Amino acid sequence: MNNYLKAPLTRRQCLNLLAKAGGSSAVLHAAGLFGLTTTPLKASPVTLKPLAGQQRKILILGAGISGLTAAYELERAGYSCRIIEASHRVGGRVMTLRHGDFIDELGAPQICPFDAAPNLYFNAGAARIPAHHSAILHYCRTLGVDLQLFSNHNKNCYTQDDAVFGGKPLRIREYEADVRGFIGELLAKSAGAAATAELPFNAEDMEKFIDFAKAYGDLTADLRYRGSERAGYASGGITAPGVIKPTRPLADLLRSNFAAGAMHFAEIADQAPALMTPAGGMDNIVQAFLRQLTTDIQLNCQVTNIQLLPQGVAVTYLRQGEHHTEQADYCLNCIPAQLVSGIESNLPATYLAVMRRLGRGKLTKIGLQAKQRFWEQEDIYSGISWTNQDITQIWYPHHDAFKAKGILLGAYSWVPEISDRFAAMTHPQRIAAAIAQGTKVHANYAQYIESGVSVCWQRMNHMLGCGAVWSEELQKTGFAQLQAPAGNHYLIGDQLSMHPGWQEGAVRSAWHALADIERREATRGKKHSTGVMA
Amino acid sequence: MNNYLKAPLTRRQCLNLLAKAGGSSAVLHAAGLFGLTTTPLKASPVTLKPLAGQQRKILILGAGISGLTAAYELERAGYSCRIIEASHRVGGRVMTLRHGDFIDELGAPQICPFDAAPNLYFNAGAARIPAHHSAILHYCRTLGVDLQLFSNHNKNCYTQDDAVFGGKPLRIREYEADVRGFIGELLAKSAGAAATAELPFNAEDMEKFIDFAKAYGDLTADLRYRGSERAGYASGGITAPGVIKPTRPLADLLRSNFAAGAMHFAEIADQAPALMTPAGGMDNIVQAFLRQLTTDIQLNCQVTNIQLLPQGVAVTYLRQGEHHTEQADYCLNCIPAQLVSGIESNLPATYLAVMRRLGRGKLTKIGLQAKQRFWEQEDIYSGISWTNQDITQIWYPHHDAFKAKGILLGAYSWVPEISDRFAAMTHPQRIAAAIAQGTKVHANYAQYIESGVSVCWQRMNHMLGCGAVWSEELQKTGFAQLQAPAGNHYLIGDQLSMHPGWQEGAVRSAWHALADIERREATRGKKHSTGVMA
Repeated sequence: MNNYLKAPLTRRQCLNLLAKAGGSSAVLHAAGLFGLTTTPLKASPVTLKPLAGQQRKILILGAGISGLTAAYELERAGYSCRIIEASHRVGGRVMTLRHGDFIDELGAPQICPFDAAPNLYFNAGAARIPAHHSAILHYCRTLGVDLQLFSNHNKNCYTQDDAVFGGKPLRIREYEADVRGFIGELLAKSAGAAATAELPFNAEDMEKFIDFAKAYGDLTADLRYRGSERAGYASGGITAPGVIKPTRPLADLLRSNFAAGAMHFAEIADQAPALMTPAGGMDNIVQAFLRQLTTDIQLNCQVTNIQLLPQGVAVTYLRQGEHHTEQADYCLNCIPAQLVSGIESNLPATYLAVMRRLGRGKLTKIGLQAKQRFWEQEDIYSGISWTNQDITQIWYPHHDAFKAKGILLGAYSWVPEISDRFAAMTHPQRIAAAIAQGTKVHANYAQYIESGVSVCWQRMNHMLGCGAVWSEELQKTGFAQLQAPAGNHYLIGDQLSMHPGWQEGAVRSAWHALADIERREATRGKKHSTGVMA
Repeated sequence: MNNYLKAPLTRRQCLNLLAKAGGSSAVLHAAGLFGLTTTPLKASPVTLKPLAGQQRKILILGAGISGLTAAYELERAGYSCRIIEASHRVGGRVMTLRHGDFIDELGAPQICPFDAAPNLYFNAGAARIPAHHSAILHYCRTLGVDLQLFSNHNKNCYTQDDAVFGGKPLRIREYEADVRGFIGELLAKSAGAAATAELPFNAEDMEKFIDFAKAYGDLTADLRYRGSERAGYASGGITAPGVIKPTRPLADLLRSNFAAGAMHFAEIADQAPALMTPAGGMDNIVQAFLRQLTTDIQLNCQVTNIQLLPQGVAVTYLRQGEHHTEQADYCLNCIPAQLVSGIESNLPATYLAVMRRLGRGKLTKIGLQAKQRFWEQEDIYSGISWTNQDITQIWYPHHDAFKAKGILLGAYSWVPEISDRFAAMTHPQRIAAAIAQGTKVHANYAQYIESGVSVCWQRMNHMLGCGAVWSEELQKTGFAQLQAPAGNHYLIGDQLSMHPGWQEGAVRSAWHALADIERREATRGKKHSTGVMA
């Protein structure tokens, strides 16, 4: 019902929904104030000073990207760390699925049935890295993670909407060429006059404006749109003259919400090119951290109690049916806030109150193994097809063209109601639904799909949700509160960023906490040192 | 003077100039006739039937992609081939430069000074493959050439134009966000009314239209543009609220011809995503052909005479100062037409007359070795920066992020006058010019560039030009004539395609000729067989 193709996205929805079911709403407008702000856009990597002989212990709750980042930096500075992880695996929502992997979804546990092959993997969680996410890229660089280009936008992919064109899929190339063409016509014909009224346009400006409209729409000299090679040729074009395709009426095109939604998806700051992703799977970042870390990581340990102490934190966890309690100077906690609020603790009530109000995204991804890369026969290599059905998207692999088989993303649904519909199905039903819906985009879809995995993040064990969802109001009133430490306890993770659901937020939240710890340690050290001299 | 950023491109210029100095002008508009044409968009790969015991010999003139394609297919069908190549190397305008390579430019011979390293290469000719170029991709698939995504469009790259903003570079991200924002405002405010007058829009259509305008421009609820996160934040955005950047006036933005030119470059059918390129260099396609071929390739042989015979072709060439003549049943000739017309021959006068009228593009590319990948510190990975200076473009490597060094494209000039300006310089002067101009885009450019290569294709030995340039008139009157054989002689190469400068045209021209040869052979075989039976 609330699929982006069923109702056009508002500006806010674009930010909130498309950006991975997370809230990116804490946006200030400061056109008039530009130059007065001081927060740097690009954070310098945190560089902790080595501890001078002192022994400091840090407990890190959760082995996702924020926890691994913290451990890596703390270790290098001489802190003694320990990571307590509730699940059977490290990585959190960086989860690349391959042959034999266990998917710990409550009610739908699966073993990944993909063939064992290097190219047959599925990034069920984080899948792309925008080029301006310099913090996570800092670790890709530092830890030697090979990257490949990733693309959201491929003109050869399809848009399919039951509401138009008899529900038949249309190449994005054709759709966009026609929309641009007719919008360009309108601009050239009418908006120019309006612009003169509205803007301080002189004759030369108006000429430039018309030039823009022509280039935007690929208009002919008389400012008409009569089709464009941009749509691809109906026939010919290489060894015979190219024949321009017939055009579709603008009103019909606009009837699909692609025009007001997905057509502009790759304009969103975090979805625009250049995007990248590690060659071979996103979890290569996790593996790269693990290669460096000596920190002990305890898996299958569920935290049951967090106690702030006058000079530290005590954490109790359950392992193989027994409670263990550990004490540390600091605790960095990236357990999802909605779970933290249910853990026994003496964390301040105001702190817990914010956690309880913090929402959590629901998101379903389905990965499908195809026995043939049939999309390549349709000139598709990488990119996203869009549909108004629940699956919302089909992704084609950006890597390993020409291999025998491939893994498609067969559904990506971030609208809570839709994700709940998938969650209510058995795993085989989800796969069947993904195939049935995908068949509207690729008529012979079913014959190629041989197996699949489904992940409803709102039911994944020890997470019960995807990115945190901050309401605009809560972000204003509660973000700074959760970002500040409670005693020696820090909440971290992408949940403590303005862009939940992105690794950049996870890294930067850890850096933020580490910088604060270092500041406190420096003060403590000074006091101590003064003490010694006294 | 005619740089795209100095004068906005017309629709025709977009097609003619941006598409690699080749002519893509033979475009028919057939909106009303759709369905009546029969030429398939996607050619099936040519599949020659094996010769049945007969000995047929083919002389192929030129070892570019069309010649290699022909040899590969003919060999497999049992034809006996020989390739005669004028230069010291195979590949033609598929030329990937690495440490030590000889660049045979007349008047500016160079040895490529790049360090010897797998990632330090420069595609001085063909550099990208659109995903719908299924013929060249057929060989990538068949011959096992690994591909990577390539991208023309990276929002983090710059546009720089001396005419605006004091000549300061602006991120494409910022430029495009503001243009879209203000154009979106105009659309929402005024074009809607015009649309109602112009189009059969009802109230619902109008609502959708406004939704489009809002999504296009990232407008606020009151249909205003007040900046956008699409431009990137002025500050914050991850661990602190994002501050929206100030906007620039539309008239100023339009003053740069980026708005009517390069901003729409990646809409051109052959420049739109998905684009790909072989991992490690475009000449991996050439190497893949060579691994399969047993055909003898004679390098350094200049053709001096082509004689059509009653039943074949005789070709004379000069090798090490001596003339050699070879006879064959057919000759496939991909020597540039403007050179063929100067070779002694008995080719029909009408045929030669078309060749003499066929233009040839002028194109300069400069490759620069950077000792540090400074662009990555500016969040740039892949893509193109645009400037109104002669260098026109700077390309950043799409591959091997984080390596110590990298090869930039430092100039790509396809406007004849500009390319001639580069051709008139010494090689060191060209590099100095590229660095000086690049400094307007990257202030510290000079300190990073340690060596370079320059290739003015109009002066490359044995080519004297880039892609063929067909006038619209000549394409109508002469293309079919050159495409047809003259006796047993076929002119092939991308010059005999509607998209000169693309490997797709080279392959398809060869397929076209091979299909015709097979047709003739089938007829001949039938006649012969009839003769035997008589």
